[in-house]
Amino acid sequence: MATNDDGGRSRRNFLRTAGGALLASPLLARPAMGQVPELDLPEPPGRKLGWAVVGLGRLAIHQILPAMAGCRRSAVTALVSGRPEKARRLAQVFRVDPKNLYDYESYDSIARNPAVDVVYVVLPNSMHAEYTIRALEAGKHVLCEKPMANTPADCERMIAAAKASGRKLMIAYRLHYEPYNQALVKFAREAQQEGPTQLILADAGFNIGDPTQWRLRRAMAGGGSLMDIGIYALQAARYLSGEEPVSVNAMTYSTPGDVRFTEVEEHVTFQLRFPSGVLANCTSSYGAGLNRFRVVKRTGWAELEPALNYTGLRMRAWRGGVLQEMPQPVVDHFAAEMDHFSECIQTGAEPRTPGGEGLRDLRIMMAIYEAAQSGRTVPLA
Amino acid sequence: MATNDDGGRSRRNFLRTAGGALLASPLLARPAMGQVPELDLPEPPGRKLGWAVVGLGRLAIHQILPAMAGCRRSAVTALVSGRPEKARRLAQVFRVDPKNLYDYESYDSIARNPAVDVVYVVLPNSMHAEYTIRALEAGKHVLCEKPMANTPADCERMIAAAKASGRKLMIAYRLHYEPYNQALVKFAREAQQEGPTQLILADAGFNIGDPTQWRLRRAMAGGGSLMDIGIYALQAARYLSGEEPVSVNAMTYSTPGDVRFTEVEEHVTFQLRFPSGVLANCTSSYGAGLNRFRVVKRTGWAELEPALNYTGLRMRAWRGGVLQEMPQPVVDHFAAEMDHFSECIQTGAEPRTPGGEGLRDLRIMMAIYEAAQSGRTVPLA
Repeated sequence: MATNDDGGRSRRNFLRTAGGALLASPLLARPAMGQVPELDLPEPPGRKLGWAVVGLGRLAIHQILPAMAGCRRSAVTALVSGRPEKARRLAQVFRVDPKNLYDYESYDSIARNPAVDVVYVVLPNSMHAEYTIRALEAGKHVLCEKPMANTPADCERMIAAAKASGRKLMIAYRLHYEPYNQALVKFAREAQQEGPTQLILADAGFNIGDPTQWRLRRAMAGGGSLMDIGIYALQAARYLSGEEPVSVNAMTYSTPGDVRFTEVEEHVTFQLRFPSGVLANCTSSYGAGLNRFRVVKRTGWAELEPALNYTGLRMRAWRGGVLQEMPQPVVDHFAAEMDHFSECIQTGAEPRTPGGEGLRDLRIMMAIYEAAQSGRTVPLA
Repeated sequence: MATNDDGGRSRRNFLRTAGGALLASPLLARPAMGQVPELDLPEPPGRKLGWAVVGLGRLAIHQILPAMAGCRRSAVTALVSGRPEKARRLAQVFRVDPKNLYDYESYDSIARNPAVDVVYVVLPNSMHAEYTIRALEAGKHVLCEKPMANTPADCERMIAAAKASGRKLMIAYRLHYEPYNQALVKFAREAQQEGPTQLILADAGFNIGDPTQWRLRRAMAGGGSLMDIGIYALQAARYLSGEEPVSVNAMTYSTPGDVRFTEVEEHVTFQLRFPSGVLANCTSSYGAGLNRFRVVKRTGWAELEPALNYTGLRMRAWRGGVLQEMPQPVVDHFAAEMDHFSECIQTGAEPRTPGGEGLRDLRIMMAIYEAAQSGRTVPLA
């Protein structure tokens, strides 16, 4: 527990009884190391859970750690990094107790640290499975960045580890936790005014910089633009339709001679067919900026553009021949998703984007690559 | 000739000598029926060619005939319709000499009417080939609405008829003749500022009304939304890239139980790969409004939305982190395309959208249907 020596124990006991579907009885529960089950007291409202951030790259430094200040249920209490000096400096800035700094060797000993309830894995994709599973085995809940892993098999291992540990696993699909995307979901699902959704257009891309970064190494990234940014378009098609695709088409292209794309793909266009008949036409790119989700209905449409920036999202709708701005409440995406996970842990609820959500995306992305390579429409189970 | 009894002859003589690539010498030229080659005088500047409009449906009445008033080189001089009363009323409104009214029986006798230089075929798609070929055989130049015909074979017959007659054949792709689309072409082709084009997104659709209209009958329309409105997205992908696609993917969907879509398809998503590597992601619909072409480059994009309305087009560009409006001169699309064709006839130039352009679209659309049906990427010759 971040703010109270005793809180961790009472929170865990609470989860095991009131909300822990996987742990039917306190007697069956495996106590976290160094913890002893005590009184079944409910979690005091407003208490913050302690978070360890693993992987101190740009996303952690510029988005996740600053967002903690705005969290109501989450506080950073530990950092994990392979670079001790960087970790010490960030610990000072973000007021993390220096005794809660870990490297990748000492990482498993986080199990004995009651100040850590949740581990947020912000490492390169290829490391997600290992560091998620180690955290789960250490008795911690895990929020893991997208894509969940490089293969569906790794996703399955992660889900199994969560189940075995009785801890929660959530994938960091932040757009599920911010109002613009949720307003577009509402527009998509509401069929009274403009009729049911007919088509979804979802495009996500950017012109990637530094050619030496891990995102451009296949072994670390698992793929190219699709795995990193196109996944937002795939996610959008899924959460806007509210359905799982039944088949996919795709094409890929990488500019010959561009040093960024010797190992991973640059552009992907892909099409998804959903059971209701909705077709989604999607684009992914590491070579150009794309940042738009549009839901097209019988008599109108609505769109976000930008749709996936950290800030400055914008919603417009075309209804009754009029183009309207549709401003929504603005939240910090990272604070919202971290607090959602903390709340799920506190209340025993299932997160909106659990491990199964990440696994589904991985399976679909593998089908997209297969469709591009084979030149065939690939059916999805 | 519309405005001068003698003009027809001198214009034709001029074409045969100065600009008639197919007719090397006045001696080899086949004189139009009822005409005798005379002096090789150049066409007086500003003279209007006489146009016959064939098929008096909504497009002719509300767009083409009114647009004639704004033409500098074109005037309506004849009408062809199966409904004599409608033709008479429209002749009054648009000041067409009542002796120049034809029905589909008397159509071929237009050959003997020197007031008609050009025939504009605005009939249902299935009639394009027949009425184009009959007009060419009558010695008239032909502007034919898109799609050129229902099959590539019909397109080839039309092209052969134009060649045999020594008359010009143009397809009415009006967006080639208006400044917004041409400004987007310029943005696409200019590689200095934002780099070469990476991706093209082109969407064209509307929620079609009256379920009894010919556009929804396969025998008359040749297909559904793709043939009628998706063709604009296909065209845009081709003129924006400046290339011919080498392969296509597609999916189609028609809402079950919707009486509009018992014979033809409602939605089509299709992807085109171009030789340079540009990918185009396109959408066509008879069930929802789509009206946007976007060119995506390394460091910016530009788009038209609406892109294909008769009026009110709008261009925006994202450059240097700023979204800019890019207003362009406004023209009447129909007047511009008709005058382009009249000018080509007067000067002997090849129209920008000749029969070959329509044939290429038909071949690609057949490949799109094949891709959708087979679930395979279809290569294009």
